[in-house]
Amino acid sequence: MKASTVCFDVLSPVKFLGRSAAVYPDKVAVVHGDKRFTYREFEERVNRLASGLKKMGIGKGDKVAFLCPNIPPMLEAHYAVPMIGAVLVSINTRLSSGEIGYIVNHSDAKAVFVDNQLAASILPVLGELPEVRFFVNICDAAADRPLAGEEYETFLAASSPAAPTLEIDDEYQVATINYTSGTTGRPKGVMYHHRGAYLNALGEIQEAEMTSDAVYLWTLPMFHCNGWCFTWAVTAIGGTHVCLRQIDAANIFRLIMAEKVSHLCAAPTILIMMVSYPEAKHLQLHRPLTILTAGAPPSPTVIEQIESLGATITHVYGLTEVYGPHSVCARQVSWSSMAREELAKIKSRQGVAYVTTLYMDVFDMVTMQPVPRDGKTMGEIVMRGNNVMLGYYKDEQATAEAFKGGWFHSGDLAVMHPDGYVQIMDRGKDIIISGGENISSIELENVIYRHPKVQEVAVVSSPDPKWGEVPKAFITPKPGTNPTAEEIIEFCKANLARFKAPKEVVFCELPKTATGKITKFTLRNQEWQGREKKVN
Amino acid sequence: MKASTVCFDVLSPVKFLGRSAAVYPDKVAVVHGDKRFTYREFEERVNRLASGLKKMGIGKGDKVAFLCPNIPPMLEAHYAVPMIGAVLVSINTRLSSGEIGYIVNHSDAKAVFVDNQLAASILPVLGELPEVRFFVNICDAAADRPLAGEEYETFLAASSPAAPTLEIDDEYQVATINYTSGTTGRPKGVMYHHRGAYLNALGEIQEAEMTSDAVYLWTLPMFHCNGWCFTWAVTAIGGTHVCLRQIDAANIFRLIMAEKVSHLCAAPTILIMMVSYPEAKHLQLHRPLTILTAGAPPSPTVIEQIESLGATITHVYGLTEVYGPHSVCARQVSWSSMAREELAKIKSRQGVAYVTTLYMDVFDMVTMQPVPRDGKTMGEIVMRGNNVMLGYYKDEQATAEAFKGGWFHSGDLAVMHPDGYVQIMDRGKDIIISGGENISSIELENVIYRHPKVQEVAVVSSPDPKWGEVPKAFITPKPGTNPTAEEIIEFCKANLARFKAPKEVVFCELPKTATGKITKFTLRNQEWQGREKKVN
Repeated sequence: MKASTVCFDVLSPVKFLGRSAAVYPDKVAVVHGDKRFTYREFEERVNRLASGLKKMGIGKGDKVAFLCPNIPPMLEAHYAVPMIGAVLVSINTRLSSGEIGYIVNHSDAKAVFVDNQLAASILPVLGELPEVRFFVNICDAAADRPLAGEEYETFLAASSPAAPTLEIDDEYQVATINYTSGTTGRPKGVMYHHRGAYLNALGEIQEAEMTSDAVYLWTLPMFHCNGWCFTWAVTAIGGTHVCLRQIDAANIFRLIMAEKVSHLCAAPTILIMMVSYPEAKHLQLHRPLTILTAGAPPSPTVIEQIESLGATITHVYGLTEVYGPHSVCARQVSWSSMAREELAKIKSRQGVAYVTTLYMDVFDMVTMQPVPRDGKTMGEIVMRGNNVMLGYYKDEQATAEAFKGGWFHSGDLAVMHPDGYVQIMDRGKDIIISGGENISSIELENVIYRHPKVQEVAVVSSPDPKWGEVPKAFITPKPGTNPTAEEIIEFCKANLARFKAPKEVVFCELPKTATGKITKFTLRNQEWQGREKKVN
Repeated sequence: MKASTVCFDVLSPVKFLGRSAAVYPDKVAVVHGDKRFTYREFEERVNRLASGLKKMGIGKGDKVAFLCPNIPPMLEAHYAVPMIGAVLVSINTRLSSGEIGYIVNHSDAKAVFVDNQLAASILPVLGELPEVRFFVNICDAAADRPLAGEEYETFLAASSPAAPTLEIDDEYQVATINYTSGTTGRPKGVMYHHRGAYLNALGEIQEAEMTSDAVYLWTLPMFHCNGWCFTWAVTAIGGTHVCLRQIDAANIFRLIMAEKVSHLCAAPTILIMMVSYPEAKHLQLHRPLTILTAGAPPSPTVIEQIESLGATITHVYGLTEVYGPHSVCARQVSWSSMAREELAKIKSRQGVAYVTTLYMDVFDMVTMQPVPRDGKTMGEIVMRGNNVMLGYYKDEQATAEAFKGGWFHSGDLAVMHPDGYVQIMDRGKDIIISGGENISSIELENVIYRHPKVQEVAVVSSPDPKWGEVPKAFITPKPGTNPTAEEIIEFCKANLARFKAPKEVVFCELPKTATGKITKFTLRNQEWQGREKKVN
């Protein structure tokens, strides 16, 4: 039976704003320093941005790029751009000029909005962006306009506050393109459609257990999977967005206390930053704080430490290709009697598919059949369903490869536990194949995290004439401590099969991506220098 | 861009069960007296029912009717029937034989499942159901099998526990048909599709703020809008369904305490039953209890009384044609400082559209334009969007009429408040037009509810030679009280414009539908006896 327009409406996350502006016009929607925008003001600013873009000739299918930290214009773009049928491209703010230029050109962006503090990243390639029709300067932390183009607030002021017509007539229309930070090769443009973003936003509300009194702190970059779709989810539920230009522990804790934050999302690295903040343990939270973490498997130690501050960790897992989180380590009634340490271990698994995503499995790499549910046999995590990307923009070959056999291939190696929970053992190249034995770098990292002098650790494979590969640990010690390689190695031997202990330990700062993921590939590449590491 | 099967999946509420059975296999899914089914068992029973139906030749598009109270088979049918592409018709258990026969025939039901305690309602028309291929006896409260056909548990035992193939290849496929209790004329079959039911279930989770530890008590009949889609919502979130065969205050409170109920839905009549239960006020709830109420506008007095027991009322509004609730009286931060009585008044409004429904308005009956947001001008509530029915089964004319102008017409008269909240003033014929003035029967009822001797009240229009119409009140007094007509009328005059006071007061039991709605049309028809009441 064909649905009529009375009973059919295109699913789109931009519609959440209209509803919240109607229901909660005077409620604070966005906090940024001293600025506070109500939902009415938030909607008006979005309408102005959308009208301004239309006036400049931006319309259906056109790409608009933003290079901007977690401040109101970035949030506003998540509504204004897709609302007029255009496509938002939010660019990772820590990329090099070359990478930024590549993304602007590859995405065919016709307009680029740049925070003036980030202009230095784009200035060197300005002459190489032939498709860009205009720039807009976002002047937030300072007043200068380094790019030839209007200033953002002037741009808004000159445009109409009336709601423009929604140009969304197909829920599979592309809403955003997010370029993967890409551990190898050129970044790929992951296309999100309106329906997927809508459903993922509802899924996040459900898994984060957000209600209309939610106050969400923007510790997760909005350029990362559109902030795991929380850019839309927080608005849908009528909560408050608390912007965060500069992500450091002092700012995070100041805002948690001052704004009575109830929710935030963060990579484990941010959690480590939080637990390492000396004043953290003296704070008394005003209200329950739920933290969703993903991006890398958090170690049980970190989970335990962050929960001892009074927060609750919900561990989720996903990738850019699946709109951010796709699975959650769903809590079980039977866990309530567990000791905290054991619970943290259980909670560090990647878990089960969301209600809104439904399909995740671990497949044997060769047979494409599910691995046994034994918690031991490794395979690749695969997903499908409404929260998988449409494909990579202008890259049919990469899309076909990623969708081989009717599933999206994550490239992450994992086991399936008897209870149906997935646990990542390693990202593809992170597995260490030593003397024919697989060593999980994550398992080893989890042990090293328990050492009292360790702040952060990454274990990678290093070539070895005898064993083929051996594990090597890179460690940042806790401030004021001075661990030795020997004591770390001994600690591992005491807590793991002895052959899994690292053969070498280096103390240093760890390299990271913009989203706080430790870039183990940098360390691994150093070790292998041109030689090809074998992958399972 | 066309979505591939990797990134597209048909939205269907039956899929929630597979997910919860995978994630929470050992959690209690369904409680019924001493019986407890885990999610694994619940799924197995559903699979058996689905396989049994297939074995009997039931397939895509076939209708299966259930005449059954809120017990496990009724819940199981909500998955097993739509899962194989068939259509569930749950019949109101309080209908007459003639009405039941009409529904079975009109829906083209090929199989009818009947609780043996309700068999008397269908036996008289057994010879008039030519399309029915087989009956199944549900023997829950007793063992007898009044209909020629198998017993439900035997039917399950003889079928395969393996999951049958899902036969849902279009999200607009019909999942259920719910016959409106119909205040006038023959009942109409309201068609729900899989997508609408899926989205409404997610909407209910969000508005009821259910999390995976939810324990839901089945005070609302499952035959009513598929239990407002909570048949699916509770399963989606991994909560526990507590069945309730016999809906009375003693049972309700016993189960709230014994099963630590967190959520229930109920018409105001059930709330009145609850607040009138003498032992209610001595109970100390184990955990917060959220009650969603709809079906009739609850009076502020009832809201206040039920909340004084420690429960929280969420007032929602909808109709069978919109999958149950479509709007919610969404709470505002600014209400937190209100006095309880004032708050109850504010909360008795029908509110704003759900996040998942989005479109509700109040239109002038003639111009089809929105009425002013003045809280005074009356118009008709209209809705559209993903949670409006596909149409009435085999009744294109009634569908076209209901969908006139691209909106679904509720027939409910309401005002739009300045804050965008809708408040029902009356169902179409319930408005009283007295001497050219509109009198809202609900406004009048709300005042009478505040009288200490009143348990329940219905006000209807009565013909009057001088005024055309006048309000007449039918009242059930509180047990042990003996109010007089004069004191009620005086009370109204003291609290309202004097012309709005009822001209006559009758003390009696009030007639009700199966879902506990007072059938004001019965009272009104008595008053008018064949004469035509004018409608605005």
